[in-house]
Amino acid sequence: MDNTRDTHEGYLHLAVELAREHMQAGAGGPFGAVIVRDGTVIGRGWNRVTSDHDPTAHAEISAIRDACRTSGDFSLAGSVIYTTCEPCPMCLGAIWWARIETIYFASDRGDAARIGFDDAALYREVSLALPDRQLPLVRHHITAADQLMADWLKKEDKIPY
Amino acid sequence: MDNTRDTHEGYLHLAVELAREHMQAGAGGPFGAVIVRDGTVIGRGWNRVTSDHDPTAHAEISAIRDACRTSGDFSLAGSVIYTTCEPCPMCLGAIWWARIETIYFASDRGDAARIGFDDAALYREVSLALPDRQLPLVRHHITAADQLMADWLKKEDKIPY
Repeated sequence: MDNTRDTHEGYLHLAVELAREHMQAGAGGPFGAVIVRDGTVIGRGWNRVTSDHDPTAHAEISAIRDACRTSGDFSLAGSVIYTTCEPCPMCLGAIWWARIETIYFASDRGDAARIGFDDAALYREVSLALPDRQLPLVRHHITAADQLMADWLKKEDKIPY
Repeated sequence: MDNTRDTHEGYLHLAVELAREHMQAGAGGPFGAVIVRDGTVIGRGWNRVTSDHDPTAHAEISAIRDACRTSGDFSLAGSVIYTTCEPCPMCLGAIWWARIETIYFASDRGDAARIGFDDAALYREVSLALPDRQLPLVRHHITAADQLMADWLKKEDKIPY
């Protein structure tokens, strides 16, 4: 892949254009992303939370789902993502699990906060130990859950991921 | 909602059964989740990463998408989630954005690590400042991204979320 600054900014402009087009059409917030591998765009995403009734449909997750659908693979190893804004913790996790190798972004969480999207509280939340969290987590240990995990270990035709 | 321990464990058993059924059918890993509001199950999910070619299709995210589809709403305020295992940072973020109010879980991240699912590295990653991250983030500021955010602020028919 061409690693010049112009190339990176070109893909970021593409992400901005996707975001603007779909924001204007009422899909959701002002966020877009593209995923690129070997110089080819393999996934495009934009925020569609309100139009799809899907709180997980942030631009980065939408782009990951698009790229995985296109490539028929749950791994995007060897690819990079260009996103109009620094990913929230949910999207950072999705990028991590998708094995994307580098994140390029234009606006940061401070810019996003100034237009009403505050990821800072979620970044704090994810960093805290369970007893200190704002969103309560309650553990009920049940032996059926232990057995489920043991069954996975014994399953001979499992596909690791 | 009935808050007795039996009720909570009943829903956790339901999540385990969903997980087992779909794991055995080859959908993905041994994880399941149900979302409950006012005593009714409104969403069911199981891991479908490998079968759907979707690295974001963890049980909790699948359950959130199912519940939102059923209710025609991007908010699940007033609901709780029962998941067979402590959510990873991606799923914790999804639960946060969905406005789910409490998380009940059976196995924890230590149990998951012992069967090959290690969320600890991602929990560390999300907690770090950008320059310290393992997954590189590179910022390229472009004015088109500033303009995009300004356009959102000016948009009169936007739907807040």
